[in-house]
Amino acid sequence: MATVNHQFRLTSRPVGLVQREDFDYTEEPVGEPGEGEILVKVLYISLDPAMRGWMNEGRSYVPPVVLGEVMRSIDVAEVVASDNPKFVAGDNVVGIFGVQEYAISDGRGVTKVDSRMAPLPVFLSVLGMPGMTAYFGLLDVGQPKAGETVVVSGAAGAVGQVVGQVAKLKGCRVVGIAGGPDKCAYIVDELGFDAAIDYKSEDVRKALKELCPERINVYFDNVGGAILEAALSRLARGARIVICGAVSHYNNPEGMRGPANYMALLVDRARMQGFVVFDYRDRYPEAAAEMWGWMREGKLKSREHVVEGLQTFPETLLKLYKGENMGKLVIKIA
Amino acid sequence: MATVNHQFRLTSRPVGLVQREDFDYTEEPVGEPGEGEILVKVLYISLDPAMRGWMNEGRSYVPPVVLGEVMRSIDVAEVVASDNPKFVAGDNVVGIFGVQEYAISDGRGVTKVDSRMAPLPVFLSVLGMPGMTAYFGLLDVGQPKAGETVVVSGAAGAVGQVVGQVAKLKGCRVVGIAGGPDKCAYIVDELGFDAAIDYKSEDVRKALKELCPERINVYFDNVGGAILEAALSRLARGARIVICGAVSHYNNPEGMRGPANYMALLVDRARMQGFVVFDYRDRYPEAAAEMWGWMREGKLKSREHVVEGLQTFPETLLKLYKGENMGKLVIKIA
Repeated sequence: MATVNHQFRLTSRPVGLVQREDFDYTEEPVGEPGEGEILVKVLYISLDPAMRGWMNEGRSYVPPVVLGEVMRSIDVAEVVASDNPKFVAGDNVVGIFGVQEYAISDGRGVTKVDSRMAPLPVFLSVLGMPGMTAYFGLLDVGQPKAGETVVVSGAAGAVGQVVGQVAKLKGCRVVGIAGGPDKCAYIVDELGFDAAIDYKSEDVRKALKELCPERINVYFDNVGGAILEAALSRLARGARIVICGAVSHYNNPEGMRGPANYMALLVDRARMQGFVVFDYRDRYPEAAAEMWGWMREGKLKSREHVVEGLQTFPETLLKLYKGENMGKLVIKIA
Repeated sequence: MATVNHQFRLTSRPVGLVQREDFDYTEEPVGEPGEGEILVKVLYISLDPAMRGWMNEGRSYVPPVVLGEVMRSIDVAEVVASDNPKFVAGDNVVGIFGVQEYAISDGRGVTKVDSRMAPLPVFLSVLGMPGMTAYFGLLDVGQPKAGETVVVSGAAGAVGQVVGQVAKLKGCRVVGIAGGPDKCAYIVDELGFDAAIDYKSEDVRKALKELCPERINVYFDNVGGAILEAALSRLARGARIVICGAVSHYNNPEGMRGPANYMALLVDRARMQGFVVFDYRDRYPEAAAEMWGWMREGKLKSREHVVEGLQTFPETLLKLYKGENMGKLVIKIA
């Protein structure tokens, strides 16, 4: 076992896009687990759009990462040593271990996972936070009914790919919005979406008009900005807009912009609602069981985009904001 | 009876604030009711912020007023002649009769009202569309619970004054946002709101922080713009924002602006929902009965701001957008 732990520590609040200079790449000796603690070796690090928000100061649904601390991330890891009766060496676990090679934890919020069920990165994807986000955001907040039209942005991303597939499983017509022909082909040909809109080359409003003849009943928003406005312009009466993210804004140093046509909520008797997946913690097992069932039956696919090497963290993270990932983006610790 | 009917006809789509030049003041002979029709003499014309939207082209919850037609309005009128078995001469009625002195109607959407119950303008106010808007918007969309904090903007207006009083009746802490010391004194001293914020002289965000120590559970928005953003910055978890209007935008020729901090909906697990009062048509009698009960018990007050003379229509309408009315604005036809 290595005796040195490498880490990315946040050292400044990024302005605009994250830069390598916003972090210190540090090393320290691998620690020993104290009473009730475990020592884990990180195997895969989940890269999520929300990370950009965690770096900002101010009130949010979680406290910001403290400057000087290891950057927060959800990881799959292997227990190396345990003084906690719930874990033994060799267990695979998921937890908030951070962007580093080793971590010590008291075991709270740490969940065991079974690598015989699915490849480990899937526990950061469909069977992890993005999957839970898609499941509860779509079903609990969006409440789609069979026959309705569901539109999702960021459709080839970790959350979007699950939203669209689950909506199809629930009998909806599904249109995904993604950037570029490869992503559009992926969601239609491989995931079974009814249609895709390439926001990089198409007029999204026009395409929504053509592809949603009955208008939009549920819009699951991962991006904000002009695409949110386009969806608002095409709502069906009583539509539900699920606010999951606003990735088009996260790196804009000029700050956020609201949807100028939000009064469509009135005209169309619609609602726009936010949620935080952590609130559904008690129901994760129920969701994971159902999703796992769908996966086994081949009805729900998961794609992970794996990049190797902790060292790549700042640049790999940027892929999310540049739209360069297809499916769930993870770093594999070599 | 007069033989000439005067009318305001919309002749151009206003840009920015409405001007007298956007209308023709016309006259024509008073008509005769045909088969099944009634002839009514208009007594009071309701002036509503929504009128500005009705003058614009484009998709909305009602079709725009057609150029050349009499401007749409809800009026209290007296039946002068009737060929409709449901009405007799002398009946007081409410209907969409328009900005004119006389109107002919087939009786559809026309409701009889009893002047012994309340002064006639009250049927355009608490017992009319603004009252219904407040009642269903607050109770059905906002769903306040006793002990919660309700904030309403446009608080001294026709809808706002009812929202605040009904919220108090439901056991809520109520803070109203209004322009100027007279309106603020009115809603606190006469209507019993817990507190008022004068947006013209106070920092609304700061005042909301002080006056809503438990944050905001229901925000009833009549105005949009910076005040909506201030409310978003102070939401309680699970808050409901009722989108009723956006009067701060209606006359802005540069168009609407969305709330830049709408991601507060995510952070606070909140929702923002629009509604159109007409959808509750079937339940108006239930609401009117309850509101009328409260009025008789002295628990619900109604203030009308009465201006005399059809001729004043364009300038009187502007009072709404300049914030010069206190309570429900109506024109009395002299």
